[in-house]
Amino acid sequence: MIDVSHIEAAAHRLAGAARRTPLLRADAIDALAGRPVFVKAECLQHTGSFKFRGAWSALSAMPRELRAKGVIAYSSGNHAQGIARAAHLFGIPATIVMPRDAPAAKVAGTRRYNAEIVFYDRDTESREALGLALMEEQGLTLVRPYDEPMVIAGQGTTGLEIAAQARANGIEQAEVLVCCGGGGLTAGTALALAAHAPQMIVRPVEPEGFDDVARSLISGRRETNPTMSGSICDAVVTDSPGEITFPILQRLCGPGLVVTDDEALHAMALALRHLKIVLEPGGAIALAAALFRPELIAGDSIIAVASGGNADPEILAKSLRLAQDLVGSDGNIGK
Amino acid sequence: MIDVSHIEAAAHRLAGAARRTPLLRADAIDALAGRPVFVKAECLQHTGSFKFRGAWSALSAMPRELRAKGVIAYSSGNHAQGIARAAHLFGIPATIVMPRDAPAAKVAGTRRYNAEIVFYDRDTESREALGLALMEEQGLTLVRPYDEPMVIAGQGTTGLEIAAQARANGIEQAEVLVCCGGGGLTAGTALALAAHAPQMIVRPVEPEGFDDVARSLISGRRETNPTMSGSICDAVVTDSPGEITFPILQRLCGPGLVVTDDEALHAMALALRHLKIVLEPGGAIALAAALFRPELIAGDSIIAVASGGNADPEILAKSLRLAQDLVGSDGNIGK
Repeated sequence: MIDVSHIEAAAHRLAGAARRTPLLRADAIDALAGRPVFVKAECLQHTGSFKFRGAWSALSAMPRELRAKGVIAYSSGNHAQGIARAAHLFGIPATIVMPRDAPAAKVAGTRRYNAEIVFYDRDTESREALGLALMEEQGLTLVRPYDEPMVIAGQGTTGLEIAAQARANGIEQAEVLVCCGGGGLTAGTALALAAHAPQMIVRPVEPEGFDDVARSLISGRRETNPTMSGSICDAVVTDSPGEITFPILQRLCGPGLVVTDDEALHAMALALRHLKIVLEPGGAIALAAALFRPELIAGDSIIAVASGGNADPEILAKSLRLAQDLVGSDGNIGK
Repeated sequence: MIDVSHIEAAAHRLAGAARRTPLLRADAIDALAGRPVFVKAECLQHTGSFKFRGAWSALSAMPRELRAKGVIAYSSGNHAQGIARAAHLFGIPATIVMPRDAPAAKVAGTRRYNAEIVFYDRDTESREALGLALMEEQGLTLVRPYDEPMVIAGQGTTGLEIAAQARANGIEQAEVLVCCGGGGLTAGTALALAAHAPQMIVRPVEPEGFDDVARSLISGRRETNPTMSGSICDAVVTDSPGEITFPILQRLCGPGLVVTDDEALHAMALALRHLKIVLEPGGAIALAAALFRPELIAGDSIIAVASGGNADPEILAKSLRLAQDLVGSDGNIGK
């Protein structure tokens, strides 16, 4: 259904709208990970995460008259901000269904673009049902966060850039670690790389306790998580892999990797310290896997997609406190 | 003596060695500053500051036999790291003369590249005298942090990139704010822009109490600062503008801008929050001027050079605490 031609078409629509994010690298991170680690800094994307790519891709692919009626999205915050900004630039209304426990930074980031926000409870309400009702009521078009071909196509442009940047950096072979929720970014990146850098292997990374994709890849069917709340990695918590994304992940990805919340916080601190970028916990798990699961990774090099940086000040401060506990007498975090 | 042809030659030597840093922008920063603010993120340069450009430029321009004997530099940390990394890549010895109060992160970053470190006291010792003695003793070549044509040429490559990136972003006219210590980055950037984007005006930015360049531009002669210690902006504290840099600043720059330490910390917090980058205080003063001195800036747009990000965790934590104090009920820092 969706293939690399859709990603290439999305790349044309995104030219000038989305940012081509840099591939960063720090000597200290390489030393800690024991091999070169290149970080695709999607935290530097508009709205602070890769989600703007999928949002712009979806909205720019809609028929003009339908788009004019407005869009609706459900999201803990990053898809929300992506959709809100894209809708704002297109001059159309946007309604966002957000969990009540969404980070304040993400709620504020969504409000900035004048989107209407409807809150729901992660444990007792289904955002999908709520979204469907609002859509029918108001004639809005639902833009799903990952099970939407044009969204996957937009996220896949990350993979096109990785393929080009890997060539420019002389990276021959690498495992590409991707922070994975519903699998839109992971599936899109895998499709792009299968076509443009087939020697690379994409590995989904998830937080402990919310590893539905890793377990689904093992069992061969879409597993669900026992709970939807309690993770600091809000950006990558979904109930199960997507219907559209899972077959792509099954076909193209290596085994999933799982990291703890503390490892995500530690990776955030190391990113602050050595890469000079701000990551949110869910956006730091791929880097965390590079640093703390080296024995499970086979590539000569690692490319870690740092998917987002919309962290509240409290969680940034927490990662810094953890970092300070780890600082040696030479001020060098983590070593 | 030094002109844009030296900068263009340095750009050729730096290709593949230095990073072309991105020009970032965030809607929230634009809103706070009241106009578009583009941030040249030199914190994402190798070693976390623009200094690697000048270091690589200087070492790559040296005769091979001379270079092989080794180099010496005096620096509070960013020039140190730049020189140490460049020397490491060339496989030559490096000695660094650092103030005893240099941030731990910078000492660690210098140690990482196996440079030999000699400490001195900012208030009672002259790093220049110390450097000269060591140079004569050991046959090392001194690479001055700013009063060195090949260093200025390297820093000026930042300006070449700004000119190209401004064109790509459709920026017609802008004031270019540059964090200014001895003036190497400011002079190099001004030379590059005078040739490639002559409609832009470069403005040096300094911290309160260490505004030797601003005062020198007014008086027409090289003024000195009353003290060399006590600023959190260690990266931009020098006793006076350089002999080589000052005439260039006089000829090409607009009036200097001055910000407080608290404004630098606030700009750091806003950069963390909205741009997703880590700045050190001295690397945040140009952004601080964009945010807190709008009435003194005439450009339709502002390009702020964020010159470095080597902040100790303590100072990052301090900026985050300031940020948390400023957070409104919607989690949006500073507004």
